[in-house]
Amino acid sequence: MHNYKLTIAYDGTGYCGWQTQTSAQTSPASFEKRAQAPQFRTVQEEIERALRKVLGEKIRLTGSGRTDSGVHAVAQIAHFKTKKSIPLQNLMKALNGVLGRDICIREAQEVSSDFHARFSARRKIYRYCIMNTQDKPLFIRHGAAWVRHPLDVAAMRRASRFLVGRHDFKSFQASDRTERKSVTSIGRITVKSVTGPKDLPFIQEGKWIVIDVEGSGFLRSMVRNIVGTLLDVGKGKRTPQEMRSILKKKDRRFAGPCASAAGLYLMDVLY
Amino acid sequence: MHNYKLTIAYDGTGYCGWQTQTSAQTSPASFEKRAQAPQFRTVQEEIERALRKVLGEKIRLTGSGRTDSGVHAVAQIAHFKTKKSIPLQNLMKALNGVLGRDICIREAQEVSSDFHARFSARRKIYRYCIMNTQDKPLFIRHGAAWVRHPLDVAAMRRASRFLVGRHDFKSFQASDRTERKSVTSIGRITVKSVTGPKDLPFIQEGKWIVIDVEGSGFLRSMVRNIVGTLLDVGKGKRTPQEMRSILKKKDRRFAGPCASAAGLYLMDVLY
Repeated sequence: MHNYKLTIAYDGTGYCGWQTQTSAQTSPASFEKRAQAPQFRTVQEEIERALRKVLGEKIRLTGSGRTDSGVHAVAQIAHFKTKKSIPLQNLMKALNGVLGRDICIREAQEVSSDFHARFSARRKIYRYCIMNTQDKPLFIRHGAAWVRHPLDVAAMRRASRFLVGRHDFKSFQASDRTERKSVTSIGRITVKSVTGPKDLPFIQEGKWIVIDVEGSGFLRSMVRNIVGTLLDVGKGKRTPQEMRSILKKKDRRFAGPCASAAGLYLMDVLY
Repeated sequence: MHNYKLTIAYDGTGYCGWQTQTSAQTSPASFEKRAQAPQFRTVQEEIERALRKVLGEKIRLTGSGRTDSGVHAVAQIAHFKTKKSIPLQNLMKALNGVLGRDICIREAQEVSSDFHARFSARRKIYRYCIMNTQDKPLFIRHGAAWVRHPLDVAAMRRASRFLVGRHDFKSFQASDRTERKSVTSIGRITVKSVTGPKDLPFIQEGKWIVIDVEGSGFLRSMVRNIVGTLLDVGKGKRTPQEMRSILKKKDRRFAGPCASAAGLYLMDVLY
């Protein structure tokens, strides 16, 4: 049995996420919501379909974890097993040929049989991208969140420091997931301003803010809830110090709103 | 009568262009093509519709010129006349509120009654954006052309110099437009490599090439036909010197293919 590891980038705009969420499959309300949405596709199913076409057998692909509807990936990791020995360059080419324009297999490697995309993962890095400009986003409107209100990046950075370390992040967990354990750790958060290059015409003039969060386990919607709260701080609605009391409350209602999926990218999974 | 000038940016992906082309309206073949396309909308009509909603009267908007289906603008200029005196900030806000996410009114100014967006225009600047990477474009797939073959930028630059000046550009004119006069001038062409900033996750690793063309009058598809020919040079299919003989031929069949609309931006109109 061969074990293959894929490094996958995708524009999540047209997808229900990496994999259908269990709640969406079972709860009638979410099911209705899905039926109204124009897209029921998941990235995992698209790649499984491509693998079936290319390899001529039904393949079960296991990702490092789910990403929500509309969330992107620069390097999502997945693995699959097959008896076939496959030339890796050909596999990549064939898959990219079959897949749509919004999914790209960036790398294919053969790995040891005990490698598991989810269970072997040690850390993940997410990046959140904010366009902080007067003009509304035009060319990157599905690839960044837009905030018109000028943001205080230094205050956001101060606020972010309260989150580093091992904490109960219940206040930042999706409110429909209260049954799950919510203690986890964030190893690093950075908040920085980036000036886009002037020459690329699809990058509008103005400030871009990039927030990186590295952690060993992320709760559902955790990064977006953290970013939504940091945006409240950046707008002056909250002080940086409030971050500490929000954490202590262990109650989702005390944190800020969930930031848009469009700004979120899974950047790397570390093994 | 007041005369208002608008500076407009748009993502042309979902549009038939700035304005419906006359040939598309009349020729049956093009008409069929339009009927099959998912989008018949033009940017001009969208803004006229928004103006009507905001001002409560039918407005005729005149642009500096047409842009083809799928071509973008960072600064298209248009004017319209009305008896109403309009507070400019309110006008911009109201229009941007009514317009979809892919059109943005960047500026509104009152101008003298003899200003005409098309007839007063002296020069235009177009930018063509090429993603020269191994990986296929993912996040910017409608905002740049993709060329996988490594391009020789220096050769493209040498080739471009043969085009500067006043010439008969018939070889670079859309072949269905042979009846028109084709002598015009290019004041400047620059070809440069740009390295995208690493922090913005939607910019993939690799080389970007940006071609600027400034001229006093552009023939239909001229910039895209020039870029298609420069790409042939960049790939080593033609020598830079061939540019001169292609010009002399005055025959579209001797130039390279028309480059994709996705990479083209109207950057500025100078008055």
